[in-house]
Formats: sequence, structure tokens, C-alpha cells
Amino acid sequence: MPVEVLEEARENMLSLGETGIGVMEHSHRGKPFVAVAEEAEANCRKLAGIPDDYDVLFLQGGASSQFFMIPQNFLEQGKTADYLVTGSWSKKAIKEAKLLGSTNIACSSEDRNFCYIPKDCNYSDNSAYVHFTSNNTIFGTEFASEPEVPEGSPLICDASSDIFSRPLDISKYGLLYGGAQKNLGPSGVTLVIIRKDLVAKGPSDIPAMLQYRTHAENDSMYNTPPTFGLYTMGLVFKWILDNGGLEGMARHNAEKAKPLYDYLDQSQLFKPTADKDSRSLMNVCFVTGDDTLDAKFVSESKAAGFDGLKGHRSVGGMRASIYNAFPKQGVVDLVSFMKDFESKNS
Amino acid sequence: MPVEVLEEARENMLSLGETGIGVMEHSHRGKPFVAVAEEAEANCRKLAGIPDDYDVLFLQGGASSQFFMIPQNFLEQGKTADYLVTGSWSKKAIKEAKLLGSTNIACSSEDRNFCYIPKDCNYSDNSAYVHFTSNNTIFGTEFASEPEVPEGSPLICDASSDIFSRPLDISKYGLLYGGAQKNLGPSGVTLVIIRKDLVAKGPSDIPAMLQYRTHAENDSMYNTPPTFGLYTMGLVFKWILDNGGLEGMARHNAEKAKPLYDYLDQSQLFKPTADKDSRSLMNVCFVTGDDTLDAKFVSESKAAGFDGLKGHRSVGGMRASIYNAFPKQGVVDLVSFMKDFESKNS
Repeated sequence: MPVEVLEEARENMLSLGETGIGVMEHSHRGKPFVAVAEEAEANCRKLAGIPDDYDVLFLQGGASSQFFMIPQNFLEQGKTADYLVTGSWSKKAIKEAKLLGSTNIACSSEDRNFCYIPKDCNYSDNSAYVHFTSNNTIFGTEFASEPEVPEGSPLICDASSDIFSRPLDISKYGLLYGGAQKNLGPSGVTLVIIRKDLVAKGPSDIPAMLQYRTHAENDSMYNTPPTFGLYTMGLVFKWILDNGGLEGMARHNAEKAKPLYDYLDQSQLFKPTADKDSRSLMNVCFVTGDDTLDAKFVSESKAAGFDGLKGHRSVGGMRASIYNAFPKQGVVDLVSFMKDFESKNS
Repeated sequence: MPVEVLEEARENMLSLGETGIGVMEHSHRGKPFVAVAEEAEANCRKLAGIPDDYDVLFLQGGASSQFFMIPQNFLEQGKTADYLVTGSWSKKAIKEAKLLGSTNIACSSEDRNFCYIPKDCNYSDNSAYVHFTSNNTIFGTEFASEPEVPEGSPLICDASSDIFSRPLDISKYGLLYGGAQKNLGPSGVTLVIIRKDLVAKGPSDIPAMLQYRTHAENDSMYNTPPTFGLYTMGLVFKWILDNGGLEGMARHNAEKAKPLYDYLDQSQLFKPTADKDSRSLMNVCFVTGDDTLDAKFVSESKAAGFDGLKGHRSVGGMRASIYNAFPKQGVVDLVSFMKDFESKNS
């Protein structure tokens, strides 16, 4: 998260503004907190240009809970849910849907260990919805644009790891969701942007907490929301607005990833793992091709202050996660460290 | 929450200990945060004397999510879930269970607007479990001790509003749960203490997030936990340990509620709404019997700095919520204000 956000959260820990009561101590039904929640929603709508026929919900349970709430609400009998399988999170999402109805793998990049975004999809004839994961953290791939969908089938996106990193046309989506912890704030809040006709369409004989309408009708306050998380998310929305909005983020993220990819493209030691046309601006994955050398790099980079560069075990190698709040200088420093490492190890 | 806890959380906002990385910025899988989570669990176990055959889970979704997770996991076909209906939260809990199987109202105090805790229960012949709400925030009633249950039927308790306010014999429970926001920390974390045989007994063909085993097998890190909430809850556990443990809390809470109940018992203006043997030490509800006078009291007390005294609309009047962290002096001041109000308005 941006330092400015952390600092502001820190200041309000014992007194939210002039209230004399810390942000976590306010009742979620009291005026000061309701104002916080309303401002967060208003800034979210402004930021992403969310049309009026969409609800903005702040839920709990992470993307993992959306994995089953979505089929529970929208996978009607006689229909099939289409999943674009581009990594571990898509696989988890379809696994939950399979428990609840008929599913179809519309495309998959598992044949090459998810190093690319497939071009073509084979949708089912009676598609309930199309689900995709816009950015694949583990494999460092990202959809450049939304996939085309069959007419009438809502597009549903798990955008947990690239949400609000670039402009979005919300009207293309039926539902877009993301856990907060990558680009939006602390873990424990899930942002759900959902078209109102889908809210109305869901069944009403499932548990109240699992119906989107429960949360929509109660402004996400049917039960006590994660107040501190929602507050902090609101601060992040403000920070994004103050830093050029989604266009600003897109520019910043592109400028940030460029020196790293440019270096990787000419390096004799390091190789990027994702296909060029499928590269993520959030997670840059690379390997040397030699596990021992990878381990040496991870260890030496950690000692030099670059934490968290070890890649996920299913890809190996290294991964640089450079979400919105990550500064460009951090990437410049990393590239310089990598060049130095390359010259010493080739 | 205790001021000491808020202050410590504030200090660690930009750097958890000496790590140089704020508590919310640490990966939940990194050593520093895993240590935080392990310490929180260890202190929770120490505090409540939790036996080894119980799992301690930190979940999301509040008590409202437990309302449906419990029947989904433990309400087998051919069995009936017994609910003790002592207020709004019990009613919400049984409503969710009804969607998922057979239920029985083992007792209810709705006949007198939930102003008492019933003495006797009529359990079903084939009881799946017995569910009760140990403290009823809205009505100001609290179970003095655990209800007796039919042999073999696990006792399940929603202790959201009095958890860790007094010593507990965990071995009497199959499952005890509570949203954090009353006595344990910020909203957005639910503490679940569950006997391991129940974890093993739940179905494995329901969504992963809804199986207790998923969370038990992954130390509550199957998905990203609400890290800041868990951290803060850990600070509250430490604070309770430092302040006499659950015995200390019980003593403190009894001493705190006494002057208020003592005053109410002799007041000519204010009447406590709960039966004497059913009184809550967490929420003290009282009325004047005159709505206009109630409103006057709420307004004048607010102006005098006593916030949040308005009772819930289903009881009317006033409610003083005096959870663990609420200081005794606050109650003494309130009683003094009430005496003054009484002398001016009688």
C-alpha cells in the first residue's frame, strides 16, 4: 500500500478525524463510519466509471468465497458455466463450480504450464456465464483485453491481482471482483462490482449471506463489515484518484515494468517465462534455467534488500510483484542488481 | 478495544517490529506474519484453556456466516438441529438452518420480548446439535452457565458478544464462535473454536471455504486471512492475559456492571428490562417507560459525552454496552449522570 495511505490510517487509529474515537472503534451504523463507507463507494465509482446499473459491494471471504458464490447464484440447471483456465486461481474457481453444476473449460493454457493467454475459446451452447482471471499472479500472465463472450452470457472476472491497475470498461462485465490485498488495501475485504439485473436474478432460497441481494439491499452492512479494511480501501481509492486515476496507474505500471522486461529480453542469463503477448504488468516471472543459480539469485537479492523474489513452486525461478503502490525506483534498482549478478555469474 | 492495543497497532502500521515493513504489508506466508498468527493462537489457547483436541480457526464472514456453515456441516439428514431462541441473533441463526434441514425451537423467550433466559428446553429425539447465543446484545440477557444438552449432541455457541468476558470450560462445547468486534478486536475476523472430531465429520463435497477442515488443515491460511484483524486480535489476547486473564475480565466486568444494576434496582425513574437472573454483564438495557423521556435521556446523555446509549428499536429505551475494554469509570460517570437526570425529571 502507498506510504501516504498507511500514514493516514495510522493517524486515525485513535481518533477518526475529530471524532475522538478510533476508526476501528466506531459503530458501522454510526454517522462517521457510514460517511467513510459512502465516500469509499463514491470514489470507487468515480475511479472506475461504474455505471448506475451496477452495485458496488464490500464483502468478506476473499476471491475464494466468490469462487462458490458465483455458481451458487448464477449456474442454473440446464446451463453450463464457461471457464477460461489460465492458472491456479482459475482452476480453483472451476473446481468449486463443478460441485454446483455443469462446467466447461472454454480454453486452457495448462499445456505449456500457463505461460500464455489463449486466443480462442470454445463456449458451451447454453452458457450461464463466462469466468476468467484477468491476471495470473503465479505465472505472470495477464489478459490484454476482455475475452469476447457469447451473446447474453455475462462476463465474470476475478481481477484480484490487477484490479484498478489500468482503465476498465465496466459495462463489459456482469460481475468483476477482487480481493483487496494486491492493489486495493489490506486483506479481508473483497470488492464486488455487479450488474443489478444479476443481483436480482440470484436465488432467494440460499443462505442470506450468500445472496448478492442481501448485501446490495443493505449497502454491504447486512452484517458488520470489516470496517478498518473498508476505511483503508477508501484511502487507496483516494490515492489512486490523486495519482492520475486508472490512466495514471496504467502509465505508471507500464513505465515500471518496461525496464525489467527490456532487460530480460536482452539478458543472456535470465529468461522471462511468459509469452511476450501475454505478459503481466503486475507480476514479472523469470528464470535462469538452472535451479541452483535461481536459488543463489533469490538468496543474494534478499540479502541486498529485495524481498519476496522467489517464484511460486509451480513455476520456479523468480517473480517480481510490482503492484500499483510499488515504486518505479524499486524496479530500476532490481534491474541494476540483476545486471551485476549476470556479469558475475556468466 | 483497549487503548494500549490501539497504540501498539499504530506503532506497527509502517513497520512490524524491526522488519521495516508494515503489519498489513507482510505476506501472510512470510515468517514475520506466521509468527504473529502462531502467537495469537498460542495466547488464545492459553487464555481459554483450549484442549489439544480442539482447533482454533480465524475465519471471515462474521457470525452471520457461521449461521449457515454450521447446519451445512452438521445438520445431517434424519436429524434435527435444536435452537435456543433468546433473541434476534438466535432467530437469524435458526432461519439459516431451516433452509438446510430440520430444526426445533428447544425453548424461546419471545413471549416476553426476550427479556429472560428460559430454564427448560425440549430437545428433539435425534438432535444434530444444540445451538445457543450466550449473550443477547439487543435484549441485555446472558446465560449464567451452559445449557444441558442431550447425550451425544454437540453444544454450539454464538458467543460473539460475551466471548472471553469470563472463564469458559471449552470441553463443554463442540463449537464456540464469535465475531471479533465486541471483545476481541476489529470487525472482519471470526474466532472459531471447534472440536477436532467435528472438523473431521463435516461433508467434503461442499465448497472448500465452507468446510471447517479446509481451514483447520491450512492453519486458517487456505486463503489470505484478514491479517491486520488477526494481528490486532492477537494484541487483545495479550492484553487480556496481562490483565488477569478470563478470571480478571470476569471480576472487572462484574465490578463494572454492579453500580449500574444497583442503581437501576432502586431508581424510581429507570427500570432494567431483563429479568434479574438473566442479566447480561455486557449490555445493560433500561427504560423509563415513557418514550419521550427516553429520547430526552438519550439526547442529553449524548450531549454530555455518553455516546451510543440509544437502545435497539425492538426494545426501545437505552442500552449501555460495557464490553471488556470499557473502563469502570465510564459506568460510574454514567450512573452519576443518570442520578442527576432522575432528580431533574421526577
